[in-house]
Amino acid sequence: MVMPPSSGSQGPGRRERKAEETRRRLLEATREQMAEGGPESITIQSITAKADIGQGTFYNYFDSRDAVIDAVIFEVVESLGQRLDALTANMSDAAEIYSYSTRHLMHTAVSDPVWGWLVVRLGIAQQGLLGVLGPRASRDIQIGVDSGRFTIDSVTFASAMTFGSLLTVMQEYLQGHLTEDPSELYAETLLRMVGISPSEAYEIAHRPLPSLPETPTSD
Amino acid sequence: MVMPPSSGSQGPGRRERKAEETRRRLLEATREQMAEGGPESITIQSITAKADIGQGTFYNYFDSRDAVIDAVIFEVVESLGQRLDALTANMSDAAEIYSYSTRHLMHTAVSDPVWGWLVVRLGIAQQGLLGVLGPRASRDIQIGVDSGRFTIDSVTFASAMTFGSLLTVMQEYLQGHLTEDPSELYAETLLRMVGISPSEAYEIAHRPLPSLPETPTSD
Repeated sequence: MVMPPSSGSQGPGRRERKAEETRRRLLEATREQMAEGGPESITIQSITAKADIGQGTFYNYFDSRDAVIDAVIFEVVESLGQRLDALTANMSDAAEIYSYSTRHLMHTAVSDPVWGWLVVRLGIAQQGLLGVLGPRASRDIQIGVDSGRFTIDSVTFASAMTFGSLLTVMQEYLQGHLTEDPSELYAETLLRMVGISPSEAYEIAHRPLPSLPETPTSD
Repeated sequence: MVMPPSSGSQGPGRRERKAEETRRRLLEATREQMAEGGPESITIQSITAKADIGQGTFYNYFDSRDAVIDAVIFEVVESLGQRLDALTANMSDAAEIYSYSTRHLMHTAVSDPVWGWLVVRLGIAQQGLLGVLGPRASRDIQIGVDSGRFTIDSVTFASAMTFGSLLTVMQEYLQGHLTEDPSELYAETLLRMVGISPSEAYEIAHRPLPSLPETPTSD
């Protein structure tokens, strides 16, 4: 991100707040444009028009169209990670934590248009998902291994399986090859993967899904 | 692929053979360059120099550098699919077929430099893998479901899980986050995924791996 040059005419607090607000409006406009017009509709012009900000000002905040798209994707993924953390913070069964997290992950992925972009930008998405959510998944899987609940030789491996399969399953869903929301099936097979028996994996993956709390850091 | 314009001066059989040979030399040169110099070293100039073919002639066969790379990737994936078909044609246990196929798939992926390109070109790779190997995986998984060996609700889903996780696990391996060849672990967890018990999945995934037959259609 490129910050606007500082100037002495206003207090730094106010200038920073203004810059943050402008950046936020650009991100919000990009997200709205993604949802309304799909991938092809995103141009710097469409974003700045929607945000009511001059096209030149855009470049004070982002280097390119791709940069603002990646910032939106990062924010969406990071926000989901925080909400999953909040949801599962006080839960004790690793299998239940892993099931709820992966169900919410898949359900958000197949129902939020921003995630459609993750499929379009798949190469970056793999890195982004592993970077942002990978450590959280590894942490949760490690708890299952330490408690003897999961039997899987490599936590890194299980985490990689979780995110790689997410994107391909999403892709099949968005292309209409899977007709039902695959969230429960996704969690169920991941539970089998870490060593939970098929009958218990089914039962856990079909428990009522608690709602995600709102994002801790946004309005 | 762009074919050279036809001309009446030679018989079509000979002209076609010559064109096929030139195309083959360009593909072979691209593959060698991938193996020797890695992703960044591939240029149209490096390919044509290695194949001893004029740079202008290149464009009679491929539209761009990316087109020849994708053609090499397609050929490698298709060839592996044919070899796996040949290997498993006379096997009867779906779990064993799935295990051998996924072990060879992962092992080839982590040991052949062309597959490194699949990770670099990940978005296309997902489509390519699902397109070329997806129907084969679905066929094999369906056999397991029909025989009652596998318990998985959606064959399309299981196939998507298989290839999505392949690429992410490969990526982690190539980046050094996984230190051991993950082929057996990959097959073992996929067997668990389709409903084989952990103890049997371990045993099947660690059987001696029969070698792949040579590619049926190439030398």
